[in-house]
Amino acid sequence: MESEFKFIQHIKERHGLQHIGDDCAVLPKDGETEMVLTADMLIEDVDFRLDWTSGELLGNKSLAVSLSDIAAMGATAEWAMLSIGVPKKLWRTDFMDRFYDGWHRLAAKAGVVLIGGDISRAPDKLVIDSIVSGNVAKGGAVFRSGASPGDSIFVTGSLGGAAAGLRLLDNGVRLSEEIPEWQKVLLLRQLAPKSALKTVTQIRKIKPTAMIDISDGLSSDLRHICEASGVGAAINAELLPIDANIPALTSSEDDQLELALHGGEDFELLFTADMKNNSDAHFEGFTRIGEVTATAGIIELMRGGKPEILEAKGFQHFR
Amino acid sequence: MESEFKFIQHIKERHGLQHIGDDCAVLPKDGETEMVLTADMLIEDVDFRLDWTSGELLGNKSLAVSLSDIAAMGATAEWAMLSIGVPKKLWRTDFMDRFYDGWHRLAAKAGVVLIGGDISRAPDKLVIDSIVSGNVAKGGAVFRSGASPGDSIFVTGSLGGAAAGLRLLDNGVRLSEEIPEWQKVLLLRQLAPKSALKTVTQIRKIKPTAMIDISDGLSSDLRHICEASGVGAAINAELLPIDANIPALTSSEDDQLELALHGGEDFELLFTADMKNNSDAHFEGFTRIGEVTATAGIIELMRGGKPEILEAKGFQHFR
Repeated sequence: MESEFKFIQHIKERHGLQHIGDDCAVLPKDGETEMVLTADMLIEDVDFRLDWTSGELLGNKSLAVSLSDIAAMGATAEWAMLSIGVPKKLWRTDFMDRFYDGWHRLAAKAGVVLIGGDISRAPDKLVIDSIVSGNVAKGGAVFRSGASPGDSIFVTGSLGGAAAGLRLLDNGVRLSEEIPEWQKVLLLRQLAPKSALKTVTQIRKIKPTAMIDISDGLSSDLRHICEASGVGAAINAELLPIDANIPALTSSEDDQLELALHGGEDFELLFTADMKNNSDAHFEGFTRIGEVTATAGIIELMRGGKPEILEAKGFQHFR
Repeated sequence: MESEFKFIQHIKERHGLQHIGDDCAVLPKDGETEMVLTADMLIEDVDFRLDWTSGELLGNKSLAVSLSDIAAMGATAEWAMLSIGVPKKLWRTDFMDRFYDGWHRLAAKAGVVLIGGDISRAPDKLVIDSIVSGNVAKGGAVFRSGASPGDSIFVTGSLGGAAAGLRLLDNGVRLSEEIPEWQKVLLLRQLAPKSALKTVTQIRKIKPTAMIDISDGLSSDLRHICEASGVGAAINAELLPIDANIPALTSSEDDQLELALHGGEDFELLFTADMKNNSDAHFEGFTRIGEVTATAGIIELMRGGKPEILEAKGFQHFR
């Protein structure tokens, strides 16, 4: 295979994993509850670099990325497993102690209990597999597949900050007391994603028709919703909540837009909802960025009053 | 930390993982059922070598090691998640296709459904995290902690074969049509562990008081039962079901015994039971190797009529 993307596509198609398309798997639990489950593998020098982060921040992020998947199903996280392969270079440091401290601090906030996992030696690179399970009322899970033409499209928080933080890291900027506040904020968007714990309680009241977390980037994740729902979308560049610290990094409006449209790992929630079923107050704090359309598979971007076709260019994690 | 063992001990003690001591975590599911969960991380050049095995055998083993944990709780496997980090060197081969073929073949036999997981790029080494969940009737899970003095100690199958196969691999022997049958059998004990699926149905009828799968080696795993149950054990060297192919590898009786006592990865089941509660027919096919004693923490080995103290020397996986 020429690329990771093609390799993964091939594996999914050939081995019947195609139906595993949502943020979480959903299984029946008891008469009233369904169980949702997600797994996220983070590998040193693919998903993070040790000299970019701290043990505490990495422990936090390892859990946060999975909590984001749980939130994207409209579910409440309950328990976790953590499988870790630790290279010898980390045995003699307190990195893993700090990792677990960071993990447990977020777990306590989220009400998540660590029930098991595996710890093993790794030859060279730190490997983390984070498995988190949550509960949702039977029939209450929000899938990617429920968006209908006419639904409004919303995002939580702001966009592009994590990708901007990644660019700073790539340029040699590191977290420290000396850097300006805007750099610190952007670095932390990349290194310490917020979990959508509180937000999802509010979103559940709206009864979203479809939802996903923005991990690959808005353009890619909106495409996932469109493909699963058999719809299109029209979004407006002027409505995107670009992270307020991005203009300090780049004055080019094209570049700012690029970060917000295609930057990965913001871990905000992207959801669709029928506004007629809701009072405006329900949407407070969320940004309406456009509307679901009937033109299946096409995402239109309105910019300066002109429409263009938006290609999915996300999936730009560090790699 | 000086060693992997000490590092893992430290992490468990400091971060409240001490209670995660059984083969699986056990969680309530509904009124009648409990859910058991296990995670096993397999890392290239720590847990396997690509030139020792095939994709198919590795896929099979990745699931088998977790099914063994499920069986050791007396539970029935139900679903699985698979997180995989694949290095570029494997994208262009059919290794991962064969891996999934091997995995799915065993899954079909075991009635296990793949519900999710993660696929990602890895820098250099193949990494697999296997998560499997099973069901057991409420209160029916068999823990390591239930052994009482006077209980008999049983093992399924034979011992030492996987460690003997590992020694052959270390000595350069590889699976092929040309090698003698005894070598093939021993290599497959290491590369294609049997899953205890059928056996566990029979064991459940016995109502074992404690159970564990032999992954670290008899001496280590029996110690785990003794520690969790607050008991000791007396076993008899002459009763151990040493793999019938081992004498072809080594004529030294000391060496044969060493392999059976301390060799890892046989993935047989080790359990204790009160024989008074059972007819002898229930134990057919299992080997009684000794008895649980009241001398907490001490494992006595009877050999040629003389008792000696058995130290735990297992955990001898390839590493």
